Amino acid sequence: MIKSLSNERVRKVVSYIQKSKARKESNVFVIEGMKMLREAPVLQVREAYVTEKFLDGASEEDKEILWRYGAETVTDEVMKKMADTRTPQGVLAVVSMYQYSEEEVLDGYKEMGIEKPLLLILENIQDPGNLGTMLRSSEGAGVTGVILSKGSADVYNPKVIRSTMGSIFRMPFMYVDNLPAFVEKLSERGIKTYAAHLKGKRNYDKFDYTKPTAFLIGNEGNGLSKETADAASEYVMIPMKGQVESMNAATSAAILTFEASRQRRK
Amino acid sequence: MIKSLSNERVRKVVSYIQKSKARKESNVFVIEGMKMLREAPVLQVREAYVTEKFLDGASEEDKEILWRYGAETVTDEVMKKMADTRTPQGVLAVVSMYQYSEEEVLDGYKEMGIEKPLLLILENIQDPGNLGTMLRSSEGAGVTGVILSKGSADVYNPKVIRSTMGSIFRMPFMYVDNLPAFVEKLSERGIKTYAAHLKGKRNYDKFDYTKPTAFLIGNEGNGLSKETADAASEYVMIPMKGQVESMNAATSAAILTFEASRQRRK
Repeated sequence: MIKSLSNERVRKVVSYIQKSKARKESNVFVIEGMKMLREAPVLQVREAYVTEKFLDGASEEDKEILWRYGAETVTDEVMKKMADTRTPQGVLAVVSMYQYSEEEVLDGYKEMGIEKPLLLILENIQDPGNLGTMLRSSEGAGVTGVILSKGSADVYNPKVIRSTMGSIFRMPFMYVDNLPAFVEKLSERGIKTYAAHLKGKRNYDKFDYTKPTAFLIGNEGNGLSKETADAASEYVMIPMKGQVESMNAATSAAILTFEASRQRRK
Repeated sequence: MIKSLSNERVRKVVSYIQKSKARKESNVFVIEGMKMLREAPVLQVREAYVTEKFLDGASEEDKEILWRYGAETVTDEVMKKMADTRTPQGVLAVVSMYQYSEEEVLDGYKEMGIEKPLLLILENIQDPGNLGTMLRSSEGAGVTGVILSKGSADVYNPKVIRSTMGSIFRMPFMYVDNLPAFVEKLSERGIKTYAAHLKGKRNYDKFDYTKPTAFLIGNEGNGLSKETADAASEYVMIPMKGQVESMNAATSAAILTFEASRQRRK
C-alpha cells in the first residue's frame, strides 16, 4: 500500500496528469474511474491504483479486473493527490498511448462496418471539454476518424479523456502539421471536405453526405483559418435563428455529423 | 475611481458572482465584457464598471455606451477581484433579472415570427457550461422558450451567462416546481412532448416537429426521471454507433432542436 505523497510513482502520475510533456516522454496518459478502466484495451494498461474504500465496495468482477492489472492500493490522500478530479472515483490507471497510422485513421471505416469514410477535422480547438465531447458524439454519429491540427488541445489532457467517456479508446485520430495540405490530399482521395463557415451560402442539410465525407470545424473564437477553409471543397452553413452569430464548436460538429448519420441510415 | 478591494459596491458584486442567494435577494446578476453589455436591454443595466486600460483602447461607441450607463472606473486589481474570469475583459455590469410569465414562455413564439411553439424542457441539468450552451444553441435552432425543473443549475450563474453568449437576454425561460404536471399541461394545450430516452424505439428524425413541439432532456448522469418521462407523449431515440451509451445533454438538445429547425425550413 502506498501511503506517502512523495512516493516516486505518485509523483510520476501527478506529472502525467499535469504536463503534456511528461505524458509524451513516457508515452502514457492517465484515466480515472472503473468505467474507463473496463473500456481500456488490456495491452495498454500499465499501472493501476485503487483505494481501500473502493475495494471494500467493489463487485467481484471489478475486484478481478483490478487484481489482473496488479492494482496497487493507495490511501485516500494519495489518490486525491494523484487524481485530476476533486472527488476522485477511487480507481486510476496509467495507460499507454496508441499511435494511429494515417492509414488507420483514413481507412478505419472498413473495420467499423461503415460503408464510406466520415471524418471530422478540427483546427485549433482549445477547450478540452469541447474536444472530449466531440470525440464522444463523433463515435455516436459514426465518425470513422478525427484529424486535429497541431495547434489543438492535447487529446490526452485528463479533462479531454474524461469528456470522451471512453471514446478515446475507440476513435482513430491523428495530429497533422499542415492542415490545408492534408485537406487537399483528402480531396485527391475522393473525400468531399465541408467547411462549417459563416460564409456558407447553402444549408448544411442540402448536401449528400452518404459519399466519403469530411467536416472541418474551426477554433472556438476565430473559426477556421482562411487557408484551411479555402482548401475545403464546399462551405456549409448552419442556419441560425434569433441573434445567434455562431455556435459552440462541439454543437456545430454534432449537428453536422448527425445529419450525415441521418442521411446514411436511409 | 474605485481603488479599494473592500469597497462596499465591490463586495456586493463579488457576492452576486458567487452566491445564487445574493443574486435572488437583490434580483440582479452580473455580466462581463463589452459584447454582453451591448446586448443587455437598456432598462436592465443597473451599474457598470470599467478599467482605465479598457477605456484607453475603447472605440468611441463603446465609450459612449459606458458613459450612458455611468460606468465607474476601477483599478485592474478591483476588476480582477470582482470578475469571475481569470483574465477579466475590463467591463462588468450588474443587471436586473427579468421574470418571464408562463404566458411569455409558452406564447413567445408569436412575437418571434415563428409559427408554432418549440420548447426545450430541462430536468436537473447541473453543469453550468452545458446549460449556457443549450440556451445559445436553442436560440439558434428557433426554440421559443425553455422550461427548467427547480433542481436545475441557476441560469444566472456567471458560467451559464458566459456560455449563453448573450442568448440569456433573448430566450424566454422559467423554472417550474412540478415538471411532470407541467408536461401534462403542455399536452392538454396541444403541444407534443418528446422525451429523449434510451428506451425510445423510434428514431428522433421520424417524428413531425412542424407542429407544436417540446423536447425533454434529462440530467447529465441519470437522464430523465421516470415521472417526467412517463408524462411525455413519446419517447424518441437518438441512434448511436459504436459503444456510445449516451450523449452529452447539450449535444442531445442540439441534435433534436436542429432536426426540428430543419423540418420547419422545408
